[in-house]
Amino acid sequence: MIYWFDLLGTVVFALSGVLLAGKLRMDPFGVLVLGIVTAIGGGTIRDMILDNGPAFWVTDPTDLIAAAVTSMLAIVLVRQPRRLPKWVLPVLDAVGLAVFVGIGVNKSLAIDVGPMVAVCMGVLTGVGGGILRDVLAREVPMILHTEIYATACIAGGTVHVVLYHYLGVPLQTAMLIGVIITLGIRLTAIRWHLKLPTFTI
Amino acid sequence: MIYWFDLLGTVVFALSGVLLAGKLRMDPFGVLVLGIVTAIGGGTIRDMILDNGPAFWVTDPTDLIAAAVTSMLAIVLVRQPRRLPKWVLPVLDAVGLAVFVGIGVNKSLAIDVGPMVAVCMGVLTGVGGGILRDVLAREVPMILHTEIYATACIAGGTVHVVLYHYLGVPLQTAMLIGVIITLGIRLTAIRWHLKLPTFTI
Amino acid sequence: MIYWFDLLGTVVFALSGVLLAGKLRMDPFGVLVLGIVTAIGGGTIRDMILDNGPAFWVTDPTDLIAAAVTSMLAIVLVRQPRRLPKWVLPVLDAVGLAVFVGIGVNKSLAIDVGPMVAVCMGVLTGVGGGILRDVLAREVPMILHTEIYATACIAGGTVHVVLYHYLGVPLQTAMLIGVIITLGIRLTAIRWHLKLPTFTI
Repeated sequence: MIYWFDLLGTVVFALSGVLLAGKLRMDPFGVLVLGIVTAIGGGTIRDMILDNGPAFWVTDPTDLIAAAVTSMLAIVLVRQPRRLPKWVLPVLDAVGLAVFVGIGVNKSLAIDVGPMVAVCMGVLTGVGGGILRDVLAREVPMILHTEIYATACIAGGTVHVVLYHYLGVPLQTAMLIGVIITLGIRLTAIRWHLKLPTFTI
Repeated sequence: MIYWFDLLGTVVFALSGVLLAGKLRMDPFGVLVLGIVTAIGGGTIRDMILDNGPAFWVTDPTDLIAAAVTSMLAIVLVRQPRRLPKWVLPVLDAVGLAVFVGIGVNKSLAIDVGPMVAVCMGVLTGVGGGILRDVLAREVPMILHTEIYATACIAGGTVHVVLYHYLGVPLQTAMLIGVIITLGIRLTAIRWHLKLPTFTI
Repeated sequence: MIYWFDLLGTVVFALSGVLLAGKLRMDPFGVLVLGIVTAIGGGTIRDMILDNGPAFWVTDPTDLIAAAVTSMLAIVLVRQPRRLPKWVLPVLDAVGLAVFVGIGVNKSLAIDVGPMVAVCMGVLTGVGGGILRDVLAREVPMILHTEIYATACIAGGTVHVVLYHYLGVPLQTAMLIGVIITLGIRLTAIRWHLKLPTFTI
């Protein structure tokens, strides 16, 4: 199940990278680069921090290939992209986000880091690729201005860790519940434009 | 002593992240993320480059927790932030900078890298978090336009390494002198708006 | 030969960092930082991902020193930089790019990663430093808008890997051919402003 989840997250994140890239004047291979970075960037940063062997796609390039193929297909197939309804990019992003937070938490728990670090790794896996995408495309990173973005990740990741680490819920179940919570909060926030009160100086 | 230095640097860098975040329209958990990234970003990049085990906060989450608690407290307590005098953010930043350069040099000397690499690691530990903070907030990175910023780090780090590596001064003393030099140069530059002649094309 | 190639790439990338830095109001040590980051940034990211020991310049600081010396010399010597013809920066960048792609592929093949990962590592080594340079200087990253930039790296890296991995060509020869292809495509694109059709939404 995690395998398919992972592939789904990779595909939707690559798509979100390609769709954002469409706003810039990039050639197809530049788009390919941005799609791949978005899809595997978060997990790569996680693996560099955990220092537990090379980045996940070096030993098993499945996700790398999935991101590359998705990006190439998207470039070829997306012919009338202006017809895409406005909500598609945020919703794809929310699905990838939720799945990647869950995978990040799982991989961290597997190598026995503390609960707080596991939540951080989940958040990082979820938002890392999108942050790299936005920094490269010189957009304001979604995580900094979008409704309840980091909040959703922290909530889902925390539930995931607490269920597994303190309440003994099986890992798969804990992950599923965490993913649903992250996704639910993001989709709710997107649908009704919910915001926490912002912090301003 | 290093322990308390470290904690002090973490707290002031988290604060500088939170205060900058106040300029953007972020929700509290977005602010939390920016505070944490600023506080532990530089040391994380250093540890990824040295490849000497996972990032420091994975094995000992003290700094991670300190950054998180500082950020949350700042969000709750900072009620009249506009009253903050203009010099607060740069001075906090200077303290964190000086302390982190010292810690970065120390950790590098401990694993026996060459003297030039140790200086680089010190500079990187000092400026890394601030650079990540500024890139995420789409500010021009302080290091690129602020008076005598990289210069102060390189001077303090070099003195630190030279005292310990070539002159046999005990590590703690060498660090203290290096930190005072970095801090002194930065505070002097801030106070009198000193600049080196800029390089322009 | 690889040794001299490597040094050449380091020097020209450091120069390209310094020349871009000249557009910003930076003091000499800020320029030094940007020169070094541009020169060794791509290889550093590669080494962090491969997790095969510390970054290359930690164990052998030759490239670090070469980048630092180049930057300092450039700061001192570049007196009438406005006289520099417009094509100098892109051509230097193309040479560094081609060489670094080759080195990145070589280092990856040496530790037995798969062919697709090796191409990615080559591209990353080539474009990583320039991306860091452009992100820090708040330029639109060259890779995202310049003519046939990622495309040239992918083409040269792929030829390099295919020649060595599938056709049994000796590594040095394969690298040389790959480098020439990357460089040739970039120079051709620069000279005649060639572009692939861009992907737009």
